[in-house]
Amino acid sequence: MGLRRVLEPAGVLPQAAWRLDASPEIAADEVRIAVRRLNLDAASFRQLAEKHGGDGAKVRAEVAGIIETRGKMHNPVTGSGGMLIGVVEEVGSESPLGLKPGDRVATLVSLTLTPLRITDGLQQWDGKSEQIPAEGTAILFGRSVVGVLPEDLEPELALAVYDVCGAPALTDRIVREYDGEVTVAVLGGAGKSGSLSLAAARLAGARTTAIVRDETEAAAVRQGGLADAVAVADARNPVAVAEAVGEPVTITVVCVDVPGCEHGAILATAPGGTVIFFSMATSFPAAALGAEGLAADVTMLIGNGFVPGHAEFAVDLVRRVPAVRQLFESRVAGH
Amino acid sequence: MGLRRVLEPAGVLPQAAWRLDASPEIAADEVRIAVRRLNLDAASFRQLAEKHGGDGAKVRAEVAGIIETRGKMHNPVTGSGGMLIGVVEEVGSESPLGLKPGDRVATLVSLTLTPLRITDGLQQWDGKSEQIPAEGTAILFGRSVVGVLPEDLEPELALAVYDVCGAPALTDRIVREYDGEVTVAVLGGAGKSGSLSLAAARLAGARTTAIVRDETEAAAVRQGGLADAVAVADARNPVAVAEAVGEPVTITVVCVDVPGCEHGAILATAPGGTVIFFSMATSFPAAALGAEGLAADVTMLIGNGFVPGHAEFAVDLVRRVPAVRQLFESRVAGH
Repeated sequence: MGLRRVLEPAGVLPQAAWRLDASPEIAADEVRIAVRRLNLDAASFRQLAEKHGGDGAKVRAEVAGIIETRGKMHNPVTGSGGMLIGVVEEVGSESPLGLKPGDRVATLVSLTLTPLRITDGLQQWDGKSEQIPAEGTAILFGRSVVGVLPEDLEPELALAVYDVCGAPALTDRIVREYDGEVTVAVLGGAGKSGSLSLAAARLAGARTTAIVRDETEAAAVRQGGLADAVAVADARNPVAVAEAVGEPVTITVVCVDVPGCEHGAILATAPGGTVIFFSMATSFPAAALGAEGLAADVTMLIGNGFVPGHAEFAVDLVRRVPAVRQLFESRVAGH
Repeated sequence: MGLRRVLEPAGVLPQAAWRLDASPEIAADEVRIAVRRLNLDAASFRQLAEKHGGDGAKVRAEVAGIIETRGKMHNPVTGSGGMLIGVVEEVGSESPLGLKPGDRVATLVSLTLTPLRITDGLQQWDGKSEQIPAEGTAILFGRSVVGVLPEDLEPELALAVYDVCGAPALTDRIVREYDGEVTVAVLGGAGKSGSLSLAAARLAGARTTAIVRDETEAAAVRQGGLADAVAVADARNPVAVAEAVGEPVTITVVCVDVPGCEHGAILATAPGGTVIFFSMATSFPAAALGAEGLAADVTMLIGNGFVPGHAEFAVDLVRRVPAVRQLFESRVAGH
């Protein structure tokens, strides 16, 4: 679990630590990766970009400073990280991960718990997108989760898919737990995790509604046939969300990376239904107290980024649903 | 839903609002309560007491200031509130709550969404406990949840029970969703929500383990026979919690109102199991990223404070389990 890498405070796991030891020498159960690219969590990048008014040089300096200070890319404001891709450099004799030097891999655990050292000062990055070309080293523990990159997808595309691969896998599981007709609304249906969740819900047999923020996004979702229905609403406005969804749904999936989407999701969900929160901007008290205040008998799930087989499941969706692949490709190209 | 009481920002529900209109004049679907007592959320009171080094006068001044500024008791740091008891003063002609003037009631929705005006400056309160004798008015909306106080329990006792009544009801529901032998660990098993959750889990057929912070609490739980097993561990130390629980359990219930308990709860839970987070100090990103980082296939629930029938269910537990009643009575008397 990487306990030996925790510098402070003592006794916590690497994710909860303020500072990790990112030195490149590995223990017997560890693996060292030569870093090629970081992919910041969307909520984290948004916070940094807004803080610095879009000034890329300042964003870059702050990210480099966080990594230097904490030994990991763990945004202290949002609490979130991201992922990375790289090439396996050295494998400890007792590593259970089944890797060998030269493997091209993506980490499927958060950067918030991955010891990371940057050696190029992030000089290849303009600070204006979530994807950061970078040089340095990262460490995997015995209990890490890692995916070998698929041959048929560009590494940047695979990284973008892996970054959100927990969402479609969990959506699939929850849809299948309900009997009879299941309806699913996805807040942020035009985004990465949103489009994958829509595709997963439909393939699991649900009728789907995408809630998106403007007509441009609505047109994209309609053109790709990603959902059975599309509506425009500000996800932070509970009444607007409830009106856009119409008849309350069995399952609402929150994929909008801005604060304040808890109450709309709860209002949109039928009694006995489930809200799955995937946005790292979700407020625990706002969700808990909001449901109580609305007397809403809904199950609220913290979107777990790990579901067995999630990476393969998400890559399979990208291969099977052209509109999803197209959306990811344009997102990656747009950066 | 109380939308007309929201002063700023516009368009959000009362819980998410910065400021509410707490004026005592009621609309047709509202009810006005003459306030008798407030019960602060444990996480909120702890934060205030620690901030002011236990100086009761400063705590009192800050609580009075929050209510004056926000029109509700909504701790801006913890995001949590509490509950209140009072007497119904006036019932709007279209209120669906079935109340009449003179009814002694407790609000079962959070103070974070309850318009509140205090008229005695909280002068009867020493600032040293969660229970605040107070005079003033509070407003209920059409969709509020309210409980008429039971005749056989002291109002202070009923309020303390109602404050945490979502926990045992949801624990009961989740235990019954699993087939076969179910094991339940409760972090903070010697507290209010913890002891009720232990009692609910056992009555639903589970084998229970209480995790408590010291030998004094362990002795109290043992003496009352509240759990099948008792162990002492710091809930913020994941490795210590996992060792105290031993064989990973089906369900872990988190009732410890301090930050940093997410990872221990995840480690203590078996694959396919469920973690129910009831503490308002729970961090959404720490839970989501922690489970991912540990490759833990567990379901993580945001403890919804509303489950139909939750108040009656909790009061029934207090009546049926003498050790729970004794614990609540000593907690109330201790303040």
